[in-house]
Amino acid sequence: MTSVEKSPLYLFANPRSIAFFGASNNKSSMGSIMLSSLMQFGYEGAIYPVHPKEKQVRGLKAYSNVMDLPESPDLAVLVLPTRLVSQTLEACGQKGITHAIVVSGGFKEVGAQGVTLEEELIQVADRYGIRLLGPNCLGIANPHSKFNPTPFPYMGSPGYIGLASQSGSFVTQMFDYLHQYRLGFSTAFSVGNEANTDLVDCMEYLAACPHTKVIGLYIEGINRGKAFMKTAKEIVPHKPIVALYVGGSETGKKAGFSHTGAMAGPDAVYDAVFRQCGIIRAHSLTELFDYCWALGGLPLPKGPRVAIQTNSGGPGATAADAVGRAGLTMPSLAPETIEKLKALAPPTASVNNPVDLTFMRNPLDMYTRVPEVLLSDPNTDILLIFFLVPATMVHAFMGETAMADGKPEDQGRQAVQSQIDFVCRLLKTSPKPVVGYTWRRLDESVPRGLMAQGIPIFPDPVRAARALAALVRYSRIISGERPHSQKS
Amino acid sequence: MTSVEKSPLYLFANPRSIAFFGASNNKSSMGSIMLSSLMQFGYEGAIYPVHPKEKQVRGLKAYSNVMDLPESPDLAVLVLPTRLVSQTLEACGQKGITHAIVVSGGFKEVGAQGVTLEEELIQVADRYGIRLLGPNCLGIANPHSKFNPTPFPYMGSPGYIGLASQSGSFVTQMFDYLHQYRLGFSTAFSVGNEANTDLVDCMEYLAACPHTKVIGLYIEGINRGKAFMKTAKEIVPHKPIVALYVGGSETGKKAGFSHTGAMAGPDAVYDAVFRQCGIIRAHSLTELFDYCWALGGLPLPKGPRVAIQTNSGGPGATAADAVGRAGLTMPSLAPETIEKLKALAPPTASVNNPVDLTFMRNPLDMYTRVPEVLLSDPNTDILLIFFLVPATMVHAFMGETAMADGKPEDQGRQAVQSQIDFVCRLLKTSPKPVVGYTWRRLDESVPRGLMAQGIPIFPDPVRAARALAALVRYSRIISGERPHSQKS
Repeated sequence: MTSVEKSPLYLFANPRSIAFFGASNNKSSMGSIMLSSLMQFGYEGAIYPVHPKEKQVRGLKAYSNVMDLPESPDLAVLVLPTRLVSQTLEACGQKGITHAIVVSGGFKEVGAQGVTLEEELIQVADRYGIRLLGPNCLGIANPHSKFNPTPFPYMGSPGYIGLASQSGSFVTQMFDYLHQYRLGFSTAFSVGNEANTDLVDCMEYLAACPHTKVIGLYIEGINRGKAFMKTAKEIVPHKPIVALYVGGSETGKKAGFSHTGAMAGPDAVYDAVFRQCGIIRAHSLTELFDYCWALGGLPLPKGPRVAIQTNSGGPGATAADAVGRAGLTMPSLAPETIEKLKALAPPTASVNNPVDLTFMRNPLDMYTRVPEVLLSDPNTDILLIFFLVPATMVHAFMGETAMADGKPEDQGRQAVQSQIDFVCRLLKTSPKPVVGYTWRRLDESVPRGLMAQGIPIFPDPVRAARALAALVRYSRIISGERPHSQKS
Repeated sequence: MTSVEKSPLYLFANPRSIAFFGASNNKSSMGSIMLSSLMQFGYEGAIYPVHPKEKQVRGLKAYSNVMDLPESPDLAVLVLPTRLVSQTLEACGQKGITHAIVVSGGFKEVGAQGVTLEEELIQVADRYGIRLLGPNCLGIANPHSKFNPTPFPYMGSPGYIGLASQSGSFVTQMFDYLHQYRLGFSTAFSVGNEANTDLVDCMEYLAACPHTKVIGLYIEGINRGKAFMKTAKEIVPHKPIVALYVGGSETGKKAGFSHTGAMAGPDAVYDAVFRQCGIIRAHSLTELFDYCWALGGLPLPKGPRVAIQTNSGGPGATAADAVGRAGLTMPSLAPETIEKLKALAPPTASVNNPVDLTFMRNPLDMYTRVPEVLLSDPNTDILLIFFLVPATMVHAFMGETAMADGKPEDQGRQAVQSQIDFVCRLLKTSPKPVVGYTWRRLDESVPRGLMAQGIPIFPDPVRAARALAALVRYSRIISGERPHSQKS
């Protein structure tokens, strides 16, 4: 794999300087909003707004003509009316600019007339050797470089999910979504109409990108089928790829076509392509990012055998059911594991799998010594823990006990933090993946604390089990086993 | 259907006075925590703590013996060590108490010895004609009567979902979960080991309960199969029933058995039972409440034809795909609808179905005049709207415009509220169901405002589409059509 700096897409995601077309002092225009995201995030390169009339745009010196710029910037961003795009790109070419993001729509996606305009645009790009992203796209986000020329401000931290998407919304609108899970993008591309940069090019870039641990794809239709398969097959042994394809149903096809003009194919064909390449298929956007979470954030399990820890029967039973339906197994624990658990568990507990601790004298044991014992169990490969947010219990039990003893109330909170720290240390020393689930809000202290340290906490055991099944499937794919059948 | 007051379970959910066993001044005991929930919620009846030593419990006069109570209360709540339960129930019987919730565990769910203890308990109940809920349960919540003797404080408002659950967690831990969606329970029963009050009894109560618009069931195993079917068939024409059954997979069966001792049956048998009764089957707890949301909160559609409104291609395409995969259809809109939309939409819009408005000059039109036109379309039965939280746009467009004009900043917020109000009025005058979806947080102003007025906003179009499919299925069931095949 080549280094990311040598990728033909490198300057899209890491430009040192930008010519920006379409921003003005009218704050509500799309161009202005995008420039605003870029500036807010703290982009450190030079920005040259180009505007026919304004002397300054949002406090930056503006240029009436791209030829007047003091240098040939690494990248041009065009947020202009359709009729101005080709001539502006031509001027960029004359200035020596080699990369351009074209946000403007009105091309292939609007039908015959747009197809002609897009062909003209490609000719200009080809004439000057310009690499084009779009048209009809929403840009790129590379939070590791504080680079975000999209209409939405970036939220949260840089992350490990590399995305190439045929919908710009699934770049921009996922910033806040991913942040809820303490996830983030490494780099996310909105490819738009893919005039001369497509999903395959982005996959190659993301494969080389050192921040990217997993590649997500949102697909309405693949144009270069052979190249897609060849590239995917090269990448999968090194990095997992997860794909959401929506063009396969009649209704999805109808919607996708009017969106980016991509040609969809029958669902079964795409399904076969994904299987053959070792791409894990997701069936919703939620699944796409759930799978990326597990595949990018967890060690690979040796097998599909899950140990479930709960303190409540219903959550244990629904998780057990979800594990089975996702194609994972839930074997009996080893006798030595059961012995160790008996010493820790209250008499009401069930120390079979699922381990239902009911309610323990010392609630701290539940998330410290018990998972430690379960991680050492030789019969299981994965640990799935129900988090009834111990904060609730700890505040009730420890906090009130502490209060009754006249000790400060925040002893409960300290106990919670020490639990989180302990579980996180466990995770880092264990070669087995650990995943949690809860029905509490993810912004409560315990799930938030665990997620911040890299433990996925799913708001439903079905989502947890399916993400774990994706992890097991990838593990089998790269170990050369016949791919596990994918449940829809 | 008999009136709810005549239900044999009425005093469980609506007692005027309670004898409470197991609460003390040790705040961290289970009994104390449950008494605390009951008192915090503002229960208006008399509470008589019974305690061998304490003179007062949490500020209430305590009695050392149930025989000393000044009246024979409607209900006893027992949160006692297993060995004390039978003798305490006997004393309750002697006092003339007719209803008892037994929270204590250590009965059938722990195996042979517990089975014997449970038989003894049933004999005591039978001898005195006591109706028993539990043992091994977490109580009842009837928020309409400010009644919540469970270990968790009730969150949010009373609602329309009646629940009978073989897991107490799915009563108590759902308070906060449902509140996120601005949903609530009408009455929720934790049935525990079902010693002499089971799911069927609770279904009968909920059928008669005027606050209950939809009945949810969490099932690990049904004991009285025939009665279950007979009761369900009587209820379904009047009220929808949604069931989550987890005992059917090998893993689910194993987990459920050690939980409440209920005997699970093969998945296909339960599936057939549900179909035959017209019960809608959910496949996760999330789906259980999603389906309840749609079935309890929306008018029934005339058919499965969905109109999708979006302002962004990817969200439109994923919704279209989800609609198709859920078994719904997405027909072309009527020519007159398309004409009306053309007058409202920007030139970049696609006025096919899905209607993709892209980005409009007046963003307020997007959620006011456009849904009005779509609701009048004769070719479709259901409206599914993507909410990119107009707040974001309105604040960007209206708010900043207003600021530029020197007008107060909260004009944007007012505009948002007026949108919400308009959409909600539309909903109330339209006989078609309207459902939204978004990937934004549900606690943002627009989804929160819409949900508060009864419009379901799902955090994923797959969840929205499946809930709508459940609604269509129920509509077909009660109109006598052959039940639609259920997708798993």
